[in-house]
Amino acid sequence: MTMVERIKKRSAKAGLPPGTLVHIGAKKVGESRIRILDYDESSVRESKKASLSECMPFRDTASVTWIDIEGLQNIQLLEGLGSCYGLHPLILEDILNTDQRPKSDDMESYIYVVLKMLDFDPRSLEIVSEQVSLVFGRNYVISLQEGREGDLFEPLRERIRGNKGRIRKLGPDYLAYALLDTIIDHYFVILEKFAERIEALEEELVSDPRSETLHQIHRLKREMIFLRKSAWPLREVVSVLEKSESDLIRPATKIFLRDIYDHAIHIIDSIETYREMLSSMLDIYLSSVSNRMNQVMKVLTIIATIFMPLTFLAGIYGMNFKYMPEIGWRWGYPLLLLIMFGVAGVMVYFFKKKNWL
Amino acid sequence: MTMVERIKKRSAKAGLPPGTLVHIGAKKVGESRIRILDYDESSVRESKKASLSECMPFRDTASVTWIDIEGLQNIQLLEGLGSCYGLHPLILEDILNTDQRPKSDDMESYIYVVLKMLDFDPRSLEIVSEQVSLVFGRNYVISLQEGREGDLFEPLRERIRGNKGRIRKLGPDYLAYALLDTIIDHYFVILEKFAERIEALEEELVSDPRSETLHQIHRLKREMIFLRKSAWPLREVVSVLEKSESDLIRPATKIFLRDIYDHAIHIIDSIETYREMLSSMLDIYLSSVSNRMNQVMKVLTIIATIFMPLTFLAGIYGMNFKYMPEIGWRWGYPLLLLIMFGVAGVMVYFFKKKNWL
Amino acid sequence: MTMVERIKKRSAKAGLPPGTLVHIGAKKVGESRIRILDYDESSVRESKKASLSECMPFRDTASVTWIDIEGLQNIQLLEGLGSCYGLHPLILEDILNTDQRPKSDDMESYIYVVLKMLDFDPRSLEIVSEQVSLVFGRNYVISLQEGREGDLFEPLRERIRGNKGRIRKLGPDYLAYALLDTIIDHYFVILEKFAERIEALEEELVSDPRSETLHQIHRLKREMIFLRKSAWPLREVVSVLEKSESDLIRPATKIFLRDIYDHAIHIIDSIETYREMLSSMLDIYLSSVSNRMNQVMKVLTIIATIFMPLTFLAGIYGMNFKYMPEIGWRWGYPLLLLIMFGVAGVMVYFFKKKNWL
Amino acid sequence: MTMVERIKKRSAKAGLPPGTLVHIGAKKVGESRIRILDYDESSVRESKKASLSECMPFRDTASVTWIDIEGLQNIQLLEGLGSCYGLHPLILEDILNTDQRPKSDDMESYIYVVLKMLDFDPRSLEIVSEQVSLVFGRNYVISLQEGREGDLFEPLRERIRGNKGRIRKLGPDYLAYALLDTIIDHYFVILEKFAERIEALEEELVSDPRSETLHQIHRLKREMIFLRKSAWPLREVVSVLEKSESDLIRPATKIFLRDIYDHAIHIIDSIETYREMLSSMLDIYLSSVSNRMNQVMKVLTIIATIFMPLTFLAGIYGMNFKYMPEIGWRWGYPLLLLIMFGVAGVMVYFFKKKNWL
Amino acid sequence: MTMVERIKKRSAKAGLPPGTLVHIGAKKVGESRIRILDYDESSVRESKKASLSECMPFRDTASVTWIDIEGLQNIQLLEGLGSCYGLHPLILEDILNTDQRPKSDDMESYIYVVLKMLDFDPRSLEIVSEQVSLVFGRNYVISLQEGREGDLFEPLRERIRGNKGRIRKLGPDYLAYALLDTIIDHYFVILEKFAERIEALEEELVSDPRSETLHQIHRLKREMIFLRKSAWPLREVVSVLEKSESDLIRPATKIFLRDIYDHAIHIIDSIETYREMLSSMLDIYLSSVSNRMNQVMKVLTIIATIFMPLTFLAGIYGMNFKYMPEIGWRWGYPLLLLIMFGVAGVMVYFFKKKNWL
Repeated sequence: MTMVERIKKRSAKAGLPPGTLVHIGAKKVGESRIRILDYDESSVRESKKASLSECMPFRDTASVTWIDIEGLQNIQLLEGLGSCYGLHPLILEDILNTDQRPKSDDMESYIYVVLKMLDFDPRSLEIVSEQVSLVFGRNYVISLQEGREGDLFEPLRERIRGNKGRIRKLGPDYLAYALLDTIIDHYFVILEKFAERIEALEEELVSDPRSETLHQIHRLKREMIFLRKSAWPLREVVSVLEKSESDLIRPATKIFLRDIYDHAIHIIDSIETYREMLSSMLDIYLSSVSNRMNQVMKVLTIIATIFMPLTFLAGIYGMNFKYMPEIGWRWGYPLLLLIMFGVAGVMVYFFKKKNWL
Repeated sequence: MTMVERIKKRSAKAGLPPGTLVHIGAKKVGESRIRILDYDESSVRESKKASLSECMPFRDTASVTWIDIEGLQNIQLLEGLGSCYGLHPLILEDILNTDQRPKSDDMESYIYVVLKMLDFDPRSLEIVSEQVSLVFGRNYVISLQEGREGDLFEPLRERIRGNKGRIRKLGPDYLAYALLDTIIDHYFVILEKFAERIEALEEELVSDPRSETLHQIHRLKREMIFLRKSAWPLREVVSVLEKSESDLIRPATKIFLRDIYDHAIHIIDSIETYREMLSSMLDIYLSSVSNRMNQVMKVLTIIATIFMPLTFLAGIYGMNFKYMPEIGWRWGYPLLLLIMFGVAGVMVYFFKKKNWL
Repeated sequence: MTMVERIKKRSAKAGLPPGTLVHIGAKKVGESRIRILDYDESSVRESKKASLSECMPFRDTASVTWIDIEGLQNIQLLEGLGSCYGLHPLILEDILNTDQRPKSDDMESYIYVVLKMLDFDPRSLEIVSEQVSLVFGRNYVISLQEGREGDLFEPLRERIRGNKGRIRKLGPDYLAYALLDTIIDHYFVILEKFAERIEALEEELVSDPRSETLHQIHRLKREMIFLRKSAWPLREVVSVLEKSESDLIRPATKIFLRDIYDHAIHIIDSIETYREMLSSMLDIYLSSVSNRMNQVMKVLTIIATIFMPLTFLAGIYGMNFKYMPEIGWRWGYPLLLLIMFGVAGVMVYFFKKKNWL
Repeated sequence: MTMVERIKKRSAKAGLPPGTLVHIGAKKVGESRIRILDYDESSVRESKKASLSECMPFRDTASVTWIDIEGLQNIQLLEGLGSCYGLHPLILEDILNTDQRPKSDDMESYIYVVLKMLDFDPRSLEIVSEQVSLVFGRNYVISLQEGREGDLFEPLRERIRGNKGRIRKLGPDYLAYALLDTIIDHYFVILEKFAERIEALEEELVSDPRSETLHQIHRLKREMIFLRKSAWPLREVVSVLEKSESDLIRPATKIFLRDIYDHAIHIIDSIETYREMLSSMLDIYLSSVSNRMNQVMKVLTIIATIFMPLTFLAGIYGMNFKYMPEIGWRWGYPLLLLIMFGVAGVMVYFFKKKNWL
Repeated sequence: MTMVERIKKRSAKAGLPPGTLVHIGAKKVGESRIRILDYDESSVRESKKASLSECMPFRDTASVTWIDIEGLQNIQLLEGLGSCYGLHPLILEDILNTDQRPKSDDMESYIYVVLKMLDFDPRSLEIVSEQVSLVFGRNYVISLQEGREGDLFEPLRERIRGNKGRIRKLGPDYLAYALLDTIIDHYFVILEKFAERIEALEEELVSDPRSETLHQIHRLKREMIFLRKSAWPLREVVSVLEKSESDLIRPATKIFLRDIYDHAIHIIDSIETYREMLSSMLDIYLSSVSNRMNQVMKVLTIIATIFMPLTFLAGIYGMNFKYMPEIGWRWGYPLLLLIMFGVAGVMVYFFKKKNWL
């Protein structure tokens, strides 16, 4: 979805009463799909294509329930979920509004986090972005994805099913952390692609700068602006969670949050570094163009400066005046050729001295 | 109204005692129009062309009174309103001074908010801006518009009349919020127009950059500077309200204010993003111009470098010296033509190697 | 006084002991002039050319005394005033040092404010600046002007004499506020002139950019740097007063100070906006110059590319070889002319295709 | 390791559960080498190629134990160490992740610091960077180096062995400080190399700016961006330690930490200064290129402007019209030569006046 | 000492244990010279070439002792002084390290301040800088100068000897203030030189921009970067002293410190202003170069465009075809001259219309 499409959808909502549920994203998957994964230390129950009514019973169990919804076009589903878990209408509105700036809100009985899940589409060589909302409370995590096919969470599900690591021993805050960690860690994959493209461009810049190079730099700059817009707020999102006084986040989890806080800072740092490198590359490109123009001009000037006086001399003796004594001289022609060589020699010497040759 | 007109009006006030009521805006509508909408959960009363005296009785009722004034040229009206609702002279001055920077002031018994309502004029393709002041107290909201015909509040009025949503159940702080939300949400419509124009320009930039493109970029930059000046202070305006300790703003309303705070941040973010894109486009434009100049120079240099030596050679054999042995040679002419082809060939080879062809 | 003159005066003081009274400004008016205006709610006394001894008796009266001094060359006068009102030597030094950065100091028994009064000289079309110091205590305000002829305070005096507005009812803090308001409001007049000049330049930039335009932009930029240096500290000056805990400033006056704080912010905002516009204009100017150079180059290249081959062809048949069969052909000349037309036509077609014509 | 390699390794970890120990750095030395240096005021014990089991007994002694590990590829070693000293899994992960942003974490029973040790490779003339992690507790310091051959700590070891200075009298916090001091002090060596290269480039820029100069500036800029990324966080790293309320850092050590805090600020300051100088140099380079192009153009223009009219005149009298009276004049030829001199003279005068010669 | 020399010395210290006393500055004066000035309100004792042992007795007197040391090469002297006055080894190290960033440290029993004393060398027209350290305690001030011949303190000594002003009545904190004031006030002298050079350059820029102008701007920019590096930290240095809670600084002195705080701000402000002016000048220079190139190109194009077609025409009638009817026409030659005039006229008209002439 291009920038204009996104904001067009967004502006379509202007004037509607607050809390109106309108899905502004592209309808990506045919239908909203619900997956439920309910687990505690000893057992796991999974339902891959659940319905809303299946979610209800888990509300009051002690086990951790992870409800993962892919595709937001089913507004009834969201309303049902909202009333079941007591979500504020504005939160539901934010979930549907897929042009949301990353942020986290502490709503007392639950915490709401929204951010962008970025992936690199190997076919179009473009970054694809999908909005993910997380809502977690005392015994549940609800993750809502905009609905691009596939997600990054499969390894995590595997860890839960296989009881690998500490995840089954810890609460929904740790699961929410693990989801955030998965998403934010994937930014490094995107950054790697950028780093590769920047290095390639840089070599091209030194060896053979072309007009296409310029457009490549411009394209990278644009994507970087977009990436930055997604990544900058991450720092605050995680920081708010880490410093939260809500008892939904256990102290042990905060050490992990501090870790992804460091990752967020690292990502932002790298983006800024790349931005600077791109700026510097644009400067170099401009200088190279000027330099090459200089070369072109020198060639032209050398040629003109050598041949214009010679052509003039030849023109002189091409005149038809009756009384031109040199014309009749026996050695006139060889002498003139000598003089012409002399003039050309002086010019070449002059250019050598000026360091143009 | 252009920038100069606006500031001219503003500077006309310099030297007058503080609290002097002078309307500096353009007189937009013939007369100030007052609309009163008084409502509580069970009933609504509306008066579309009310007079000042009609406002008075509502001052002490328990219902919420929304007094909407369009057009500020009637200074008596404002003074009457001011004394009826106990507004400070400086607030009245600020309302009339339509070159006001967006801000919000907590005056204890009422809260004053001033900001710009932006709209996109479909005829002139320009942003039109109108200053809106909001004053709200325990049981009333006064909204004062500079007076451009039409406003954005009609859907809101409709919601009140039809008792849609929660608006009739809540107090004047919620109404003030709803007004702010309407205005700020409309900024997204403006942003959409910008996004469209930037995308169009960007395509033009890649396919066919012209001198007109440059002026378009400049024009967009200027409008962006203006838009930014209107939008930046919004963040603070809403933040002040949200963090206010005044009991005029109920806690439930603060959650809504936090929502428009997020919108304000989003708008500012987008503006900054567009600004960067425009800067980047200007760089690209400049580089393209340099690039094309380079192309032009190369053509000139190639032509000159090929034909100058040839013309010189032709000039040599156009000379009239008596003793020029080559002139008399049987194969002199074809030989010279061959040499000329040779010289031209060497030049073309040289340009091929230099990658100019 | 140019920048160098000002700082020369300033550096002349280096090495002198602190508190040494040296007047570094230009001696602008022949002599220091003292005006006294003493008023309370019921009466006004005015003395237009007072001496120092006339100031003394007012020190202990309950009425508000405004001592206005124009011209700082009389150091004895300042020392007398200083000892009469108990001013710290460093404050006296600051008053005399007319290259002072705007600031406000709370000295407990009085408050000291220094700032620049700007005016626009209609003859030289330049901004003229004059340093104004204000000292106000429990029952007096002393204003000290550097001494340019005339000031902006006449309307204020008129208001006091005529008992207009609330000024006679309020204390010296309100008078000090009124003086600040007068000075700061006049910045808008200066900004208006800037806005006019920027708009004029902008039109020129689009219609007919010349080398003079560049120098105009540069000149405006320089003046803007100067204006900004005067205006930026205003924000802090007023903010310090507004947040002061001194009991010399009554709470009622603080509402007024908040008003001029808003003005100061507005002025700074406008200056930043103009700065950005000037930067953007410089970019456009540079691009325009490049664009026009491109035009010039195209003309040159077109001409050279058409006529160089033709001239070469003409040169060929101007050669004097004995054996040139074409020379003797009956239709040789018209044929060559045809070929020449052909070559020129091909060139023109090529330029059309390249979009250069 | 280039930027891309580093981030590739980093992104390879995306999706793995937190706390997974993966060494992402290049395997630099064949095997991890452990050195133990255990000392108190009276005695030193050293073991240059220790095994993990040798570390254990020192855990509970009162003496200070410095365990220095070079090479991180032995994950079992790290896990052993981690469980012996009770290190958090995330800390172990950070140690292995050699693309870490410099930071310091207070983990209550120990403090973790990670930063870059920079060195200048005399062969490749490049900066080489190695990540160093420090963990220190009540009676131990563990330093973990990425594993480039050699380190900067030998003089420090010498000081411990020889009981020079105060190091043997103080605790592990002082040893950690000494390690940090050694690493950060070495940044000045790097800065010196930069300063030398910048000065050399600057001279080249003034005397003989070439296209190579441009690439040198670009290369320095890139290295500076990298250096800055390593150095900026140092300020915070040290500041966190200095302001720490942990009782692992004694007050006497804090004075020393304040000292390296000053060094960090100094390094950052210098880097910013160099960055500005490089920017300024790029501007100068661009201006020089423009200037030289101007020179080239002037030469071309002078030559063309002098010889084109002359060649035209010669062309006139090279025409073969039957009726050209000048052709037959006795003094036609010398007269024309005179006229030609005159034209050339006028042109030269014109260029002199335009200051082009 | 150039930048590289300075940092070379600095980097030579890397790896040495903290507190190692190494003098890294240039050895400027032959020997360290000690001056003692001991005074109270009633008496002064002065010793111009004192030895270390002479300093000792003053340690416990009630009078204020000012020990001024010029030249830091005598490390024994410093160590003696350090142990006599109880200075921390790191402070001694900082005193010797003459590449120190300006700072102030409160060491409880004394306060340490280090900053740069700038002077303008009238011979080399360059800024010379010398590091000055101040240490002051309950009854003494030690000032340590790097050792350039001469200093700025003579007028201050004169004030003490002659008992001028309040200096003899006040304590060592006032003396330290007076020293700081002397040094910081001298920055205005440096700024004046800059202002003069900038104004001169600006005139040159408008009247006759040359390549030399560019290098001048570059040189000023470099010096400005250096000056800024010395001046920026001053703000903090003085601010720390002013806000210090140490009882070594009496409240009365703080008013004076606030005064030099204002000076520091003023200096920084001026430097920023000059920096902006230099940036703006560089832009103007670049634009001027482009403009002049444009002029040059126009001249070339006009000449080429007029004479190329004419030369071509002349070339046509210089051809030797047998059958060229025009050649034989009676009025062929004058007619062609007329046509040539016509062509030239059309070209001139075209350039007039294009505003190139």
